[in-house]
Amino acid sequence: MQNPSRGDAENFRIRRLEIADKGKGFLELLSQLTVCGAVSDEEFTERFEEVAKYGDEHMICVIEDVRLGKIVASGSVFVERKFIRKCGKAGHIEDVVVDSSVRGLQLGKRVVEYLVNHACSVGCYKVILDCSEDNKPFYEKCGFMKKEVQMVKYFV
Amino acid sequence: MQNPSRGDAENFRIRRLEIADKGKGFLELLSQLTVCGAVSDEEFTERFEEVAKYGDEHMICVIEDVRLGKIVASGSVFVERKFIRKCGKAGHIEDVVVDSSVRGLQLGKRVVEYLVNHACSVGCYKVILDCSEDNKPFYEKCGFMKKEVQMVKYFV
Repeated sequence: MQNPSRGDAENFRIRRLEIADKGKGFLELLSQLTVCGAVSDEEFTERFEEVAKYGDEHMICVIEDVRLGKIVASGSVFVERKFIRKCGKAGHIEDVVVDSSVRGLQLGKRVVEYLVNHACSVGCYKVILDCSEDNKPFYEKCGFMKKEVQMVKYFV
Repeated sequence: MQNPSRGDAENFRIRRLEIADKGKGFLELLSQLTVCGAVSDEEFTERFEEVAKYGDEHMICVIEDVRLGKIVASGSVFVERKFIRKCGKAGHIEDVVVDSSVRGLQLGKRVVEYLVNHACSVGCYKVILDCSEDNKPFYEKCGFMKKEVQMVKYFV
């Protein structure tokens, strides 16, 4: 049986990424998504500041388990300025991940809603993301629908 | 039979978007892609300068038919700074379009190669885009492969 205290909503605080989150397992969390690699404190700080420079145009959010001081979910959204749609803006959601130890607590949904609301609040006419076929039902529950096919070209 | 002069490569110059391209049919070209809407000179200039501020992080390229002084193809790429992949960067290609009057001259391929080379030159580990099933073979010829499913949520 699931530990009932595990899912207490007040244990999980959603907020923007902070520089101290490197020490709270942010990169270990991302490594559940894909290759993360070794990142020094200096490299982390530099990348954090580069992203922060974009302000609301590039927002990374995290959920912290405040009892443990551990980052257990994350996702990012950045804003693309277009000329189409009367010089519209499109939100791009990337790198949504939930720690394997806290799956089933709707934390992924909270992250996606937080990112979607952010994109809406800064005036985007749409928000898009790419996901596996397996994750399609999850995003449909979040109000997304299938549109196109993602294509990729790797350089390394 | 196709007019042989129509396809002369030297007639078609590829370069970054310039502010004067509004007067060369840039927005009319984009309207072949999707809803573009009325954009005043002031709105165009404002958006142009917002994008220019990002420098090499957001590059819009065009192909001009220099005989006609007309923009006949376009595409954009912007660079997302990530924490995954050792603080890697991902290129996002958007809004690739070729004027219906000059299809079949490999201008789309030139645009995509220009955008891909740009993403590579600024250090991206990959470049991604979303396309219709119909356009998948075109992007495969450009060296892309299918990865995931694009999901969208519209606000307006």
